[in-house]
Amino acid sequence: LDWTRLGSRTISSGAAEIATKEAQHSVDDSFGVQQRTFGSAAEPIQRNPDYSVLNSDDVSYFKSILGDNGVVQDKDRVAVANVDWMGKYKGASQLLLLPKSTNEVSKVLAYCDSRRLAVVPQGGNTGLVGGSVPVHDEVIVNLGGMDKIISFDNVNGILTCEAGCVLENLSTFVENEGFIMPLDLGAKGSCQIGGNISTNAGGLRFIRYGSLHGNVLGLEVVLANGTVLDMLTTLRKDNTGYDLKHLFVGSEGSLGIVTKVSILTPAKLPSTNVAFLSCNDYMSCQKLLLAARRSLGEILSAFEFMDRQCIDLAMTHLEGVHNPLPVSPYKFYVLIETTGSDESYDKAKLEAFLLRSMEDGLVADGVIAQDISQASNFWRIREGISEASVKVGAVYKYDLSIPVEKLYDIVEEMRSRVGDTAEVLGYGHLGDGNLHLNILSSKYSDNILAQIEPFVYEWTAGHRGSISAEHGLGLMKAEKIHYSKSPEAVQLMASIKKLMDPNSILNPYKVLPQSALSPEQGS
Amino acid sequence: LDWTRLGSRTISSGAAEIATKEAQHSVDDSFGVQQRTFGSAAEPIQRNPDYSVLNSDDVSYFKSILGDNGVVQDKDRVAVANVDWMGKYKGASQLLLLPKSTNEVSKVLAYCDSRRLAVVPQGGNTGLVGGSVPVHDEVIVNLGGMDKIISFDNVNGILTCEAGCVLENLSTFVENEGFIMPLDLGAKGSCQIGGNISTNAGGLRFIRYGSLHGNVLGLEVVLANGTVLDMLTTLRKDNTGYDLKHLFVGSEGSLGIVTKVSILTPAKLPSTNVAFLSCNDYMSCQKLLLAARRSLGEILSAFEFMDRQCIDLAMTHLEGVHNPLPVSPYKFYVLIETTGSDESYDKAKLEAFLLRSMEDGLVADGVIAQDISQASNFWRIREGISEASVKVGAVYKYDLSIPVEKLYDIVEEMRSRVGDTAEVLGYGHLGDGNLHLNILSSKYSDNILAQIEPFVYEWTAGHRGSISAEHGLGLMKAEKIHYSKSPEAVQLMASIKKLMDPNSILNPYKVLPQSALSPEQGS
Repeated sequence: LDWTRLGSRTISSGAAEIATKEAQHSVDDSFGVQQRTFGSAAEPIQRNPDYSVLNSDDVSYFKSILGDNGVVQDKDRVAVANVDWMGKYKGASQLLLLPKSTNEVSKVLAYCDSRRLAVVPQGGNTGLVGGSVPVHDEVIVNLGGMDKIISFDNVNGILTCEAGCVLENLSTFVENEGFIMPLDLGAKGSCQIGGNISTNAGGLRFIRYGSLHGNVLGLEVVLANGTVLDMLTTLRKDNTGYDLKHLFVGSEGSLGIVTKVSILTPAKLPSTNVAFLSCNDYMSCQKLLLAARRSLGEILSAFEFMDRQCIDLAMTHLEGVHNPLPVSPYKFYVLIETTGSDESYDKAKLEAFLLRSMEDGLVADGVIAQDISQASNFWRIREGISEASVKVGAVYKYDLSIPVEKLYDIVEEMRSRVGDTAEVLGYGHLGDGNLHLNILSSKYSDNILAQIEPFVYEWTAGHRGSISAEHGLGLMKAEKIHYSKSPEAVQLMASIKKLMDPNSILNPYKVLPQSALSPEQGS
Repeated sequence: LDWTRLGSRTISSGAAEIATKEAQHSVDDSFGVQQRTFGSAAEPIQRNPDYSVLNSDDVSYFKSILGDNGVVQDKDRVAVANVDWMGKYKGASQLLLLPKSTNEVSKVLAYCDSRRLAVVPQGGNTGLVGGSVPVHDEVIVNLGGMDKIISFDNVNGILTCEAGCVLENLSTFVENEGFIMPLDLGAKGSCQIGGNISTNAGGLRFIRYGSLHGNVLGLEVVLANGTVLDMLTTLRKDNTGYDLKHLFVGSEGSLGIVTKVSILTPAKLPSTNVAFLSCNDYMSCQKLLLAARRSLGEILSAFEFMDRQCIDLAMTHLEGVHNPLPVSPYKFYVLIETTGSDESYDKAKLEAFLLRSMEDGLVADGVIAQDISQASNFWRIREGISEASVKVGAVYKYDLSIPVEKLYDIVEEMRSRVGDTAEVLGYGHLGDGNLHLNILSSKYSDNILAQIEPFVYEWTAGHRGSISAEHGLGLMKAEKIHYSKSPEAVQLMASIKKLMDPNSILNPYKVLPQSALSPEQGS
């Protein structure tokens, strides 16, 4: 969550102009990103000369498999698939393939592997780290044409579908059956379930329903050489051999292309409540989280926090949003959501919890939404921070996992590092230990970037945090993996990559550092 | 769960005599198991001659690393480690090693790998499929000496500990902090958390808190060559590269030895209620499950079912147990448990649910436990089925995952196959789609086994079920993996095994079929 949610809103509202406008907004920002992506600006990633160059025979073969409609060479259509929605990452692919079945994906990959044509798997292209667009001339394989729901078990809530199904469509489908998808994120109007799984998407329901590693029951995956790996079980329990599907959850399309999915969907509960609170210090936020886990227990469904700088920014730059606690400024704000099966009971429980928390001095002030409009306003503040940020000018954005007790330290240290040259915002999914750290300045500056990096990565590594909590590594952070993973782990990842994709055709230049994949690195 | 729960009770009550008595009970059964384990009785698994034979230099080296106390050659102590708790599987190891640290495990494995000495990793040795005892003369590496709690984050409920910690000790520790372990099983008095993770243990809290793939946050693992793989993050979210820890969850010690663990523990909730119900047909059980998911929602914590044959058996053979619904015999019985944060509300909710279910005709009769003693009696019936089974004579036991709507079909088909020659019982974790199928006869018979196998495996495979829902494959079912996994999946598992353990020293003869691991099978 973060940009993603904003992005989805933009994309799903459907106007190409808005997406373009968004890209305009992030022009200043993109300098920073480019710097981060490619290390020093002087070192762009070279095309790997081992890959073949697409020729007309290749195109003819693809047409024989996919038909004319499945092979897109039209410059405008290919151009759209070459660039991510933020306009930050842009490839130079000449070909977009639109398979309609697993068998077609299998034939495409078998051919690409035999010809050593590099491939970028693409879903809704809503990622934030350049993982789903080509870097050079990779063939784009978009799964959007595989969007059928295969089955739904309405006793156990187990959905089986093709990988190209859009998350929002799946949500609508299962909600009509009385269930919900175990994940929800802003990009839901565009993102595809195969991409969600390939990136191990987190999002809004994580604190309640946990990770996709727990919710995905089965996958069908096409390996680099075209082998179809059928792991499409719909069972909650299956201890027969290694659970291979986990290799494909979060490996960003670099080990195989997910073609079918079975996933556990929780029962839909009728009652939702949202509270907006303020705390005087970060310790109170932590204690409030602990108290919420205890007292709200099974109905707690979100625990988000924002510092005062976030609220000030949101109030300044977001239209139609008002501060629910306007009387005096507080240092921290917390949004709590509950979801349960009993409207009146859930509300009474939340009220009692807030009363107790105020008596205990954890909460300075607070309000519970009395209707959907108020609830939306509360969420709009939290979700609008990212949108408001880009209106300031340049934004340096980081998505970090840090142990909760240390999570705000980096915000304060960053603030003292950059001094008056930039504004530092801290917000995020406190319940998951996930901080979104934004540094804002009126325009991009090498000096500010030098204050931020590598400090932010080193600090995170020093506290055993993650430099990418939910956004993945993609192209942007492939070379930064060592900040969060040990050399032995990276080496094993590279060995597995070489084992499963010996010609390295799948999503090259991404996820793993190029040095780990070089031929002289023995497996 | 099943035998495990019984087993733990036996083991944790601590008397070797009882364990021996148990082994006596299962003598008749063990014929069946041996048959199943080795395919035809004429083909016992041969020792792989590629492995070295332990010599006195090896023992001297181990003593230099582990000290005299860490190297056990005493025949009686080694004999205990050579046999599983049921007395069904027995190895011929000469050496039991007791490392005290990750570094010691690393040195032991590096040495064994260089010498090509086969190793069996061992935790509490409470498994049911012969996975944790030697088949021939493998060196036993027991983790029980590594039993330290490293840290506990009492805001987020994240426990970090060594792999040899006994589950019950961890439960006690975190409960004092206001949390619970995300898994609970009968063997908790003996089983170790490293073994739980290596076997992806399911158990009683699965329906509520899900699988260990969702709850394990980090692992430290020693690979076959002694490399220490540090993945011991305590973060809820970390999308930096492939999530390698999942390879070690459920791979039964064949890819590495788990040495440290970090795991998410849910908040402890104060209110538990248990109901015991009867249904007139299997369709009603299914509908009741659906209704329970809807109406009890977030407080549902167990949904277990038993057929009448189970209840009759329990009433006949278990001491001090009475049928809570004695008036008339019903075809099916269901145990429902709720766990929540509000005693009176939860109880009212359960009562309203039961009333409605009776009005709707789903439930024929039912009762809610009024105190802990009644609740224990309800659970005792469910948990005592396995104990009662062995009192009949020979028991053929299967642990299957089957889509819920088909789950009872195999019980009825089996009943018609065996006719009067045996009694067929169906029970298990209906909420997880997990059937325990027991076939009872007064003594072991080739004819009965021929009626059961391979039918039970073929039927399960035909319905895309799992031939091992939670017990793993171990030695017993290594050669049966193809009933639940595709040839492509088994081949990839074997390739990963060869990549990570090229000398095949870790837990040989188990999990994967020997044919898949033979040298001529290219990776």
